[in-house]
Amino acid sequence: MKFIKEQIKVARKNDPSLNSIWEVFLSVGFRAIILYKISRFFYIHKRYFLSRYFMERSKRKTGIEIHPGALIGKRLFIDHGTGVIIGQTAVIGDDVVIYHGVTLGGTGKEMGKRHPNIGNNVFIGCGAKILGNINIGDNVKIGANAVVLNDVPSNVTVVGIPGKIVKF
Amino acid sequence: MKFIKEQIKVARKNDPSLNSIWEVFLSVGFRAIILYKISRFFYIHKRYFLSRYFMERSKRKTGIEIHPGALIGKRLFIDHGTGVIIGQTAVIGDDVVIYHGVTLGGTGKEMGKRHPNIGNNVFIGCGAKILGNINIGDNVKIGANAVVLNDVPSNVTVVGIPGKIVKF
Amino acid sequence: MKFIKEQIKVARKNDPSLNSIWEVFLSVGFRAIILYKISRFFYIHKRYFLSRYFMERSKRKTGIEIHPGALIGKRLFIDHGTGVIIGQTAVIGDDVVIYHGVTLGGTGKEMGKRHPNIGNNVFIGCGAKILGNINIGDNVKIGANAVVLNDVPSNVTVVGIPGKIVKF
Repeated sequence: MKFIKEQIKVARKNDPSLNSIWEVFLSVGFRAIILYKISRFFYIHKRYFLSRYFMERSKRKTGIEIHPGALIGKRLFIDHGTGVIIGQTAVIGDDVVIYHGVTLGGTGKEMGKRHPNIGNNVFIGCGAKILGNINIGDNVKIGANAVVLNDVPSNVTVVGIPGKIVKF
Repeated sequence: MKFIKEQIKVARKNDPSLNSIWEVFLSVGFRAIILYKISRFFYIHKRYFLSRYFMERSKRKTGIEIHPGALIGKRLFIDHGTGVIIGQTAVIGDDVVIYHGVTLGGTGKEMGKRHPNIGNNVFIGCGAKILGNINIGDNVKIGANAVVLNDVPSNVTVVGIPGKIVKF
Repeated sequence: MKFIKEQIKVARKNDPSLNSIWEVFLSVGFRAIILYKISRFFYIHKRYFLSRYFMERSKRKTGIEIHPGALIGKRLFIDHGTGVIIGQTAVIGDDVVIYHGVTLGGTGKEMGKRHPNIGNNVFIGCGAKILGNINIGDNVKIGANAVVLNDVPSNVTVVGIPGKIVKF
């Protein structure tokens, strides 16, 4: 399948500690995306309880929670993964790399569309929180433990609490 | 039971992605509070090993660790939950909302009462760490990834490292 | 065995909520170090798939991921543990205490040796991220949620994003 080939390709590109392609099948990032696809299948067919069951199963088994309502692009790579939360109305572009502890969440003040839009080729460092219905541009790097609450243009690096642009 | 009714009520209020009340029973926050109650039962009866077993089981199955010695108020809502740690001597008021990655912990310097007291109607954002025997007032909001090491008065918002009051 | 004796000793020293030494065997920190030792055995004998299997098993069961290539010193104590990630080329000295959510990771820019070296008697607070091939001296304390990207001399305390020295 194309999806598996792509996942092996991004894992080889992003994880220098990989020794063989079989190890990809053990990784929690790969498993979480498979479980997301199952969860999303039931979600689209309005079997919400089953959908939620697979989402919670993914959280228990992989530490990664991707809400089936989220839209994820091609070649998403989730490294390490423990504690990753991706909210219901989040939208993720292509070639995004997400590390453990990242949240694409809400601020608790909005209803409806309340989670961020992430552009293409974005790198989100471990522990970063991106909250609210905001837009993150293409080729953005977000530093570890940063808290991003506002729109971010393309081609910049953001660090700190609250997230500030440090490099163009 | 009253507890289950309350949990369903707070889940509906705080989680806009919920589609039916049955999904509450799948959520890790609900399960962790049940396991805390079991763990606390054995703790009060001085069966410390059994008590610890259920605490560690909760951590494995839900990612949430609530020490059986902690006192939690009514209608505590733990959303997402992965990585939540609540220490032995922590005290939590009523109607508190805690997100994933929150720690109510110690600083490693104190013995005895060494974890925080949280007031009523407090909102603690994802990844926030509240450390030491400090008092957090009522209606406080604590931002994502904040580190709070000092007392916080009521009705304020705290963000950053170390946590600073930004809004009255 | 000497290792088990040492682990009991450090757990008693660092965890005031412990009621008996048997509880050490339930703790995820203890289990993760056992699984690391198994994983490392297969790693040294170049059975990389088996090695990776035990690393991923440790992550699923304990929330702690220690790459078998990492070198850890004596009497390492991992408290709570959920979300701890220790990278392939990390080196940890003796008597180090690591809390939950700590990452000893890479910056994504380096190849080869790309994870930090930690000195002896270092205390790393919950949620702290130490990234890149940097050196952390002896007797250093690193605050909760700090992000450390540069070398740190001995006998200092580091807090914030990016990590700054606050106390000598």
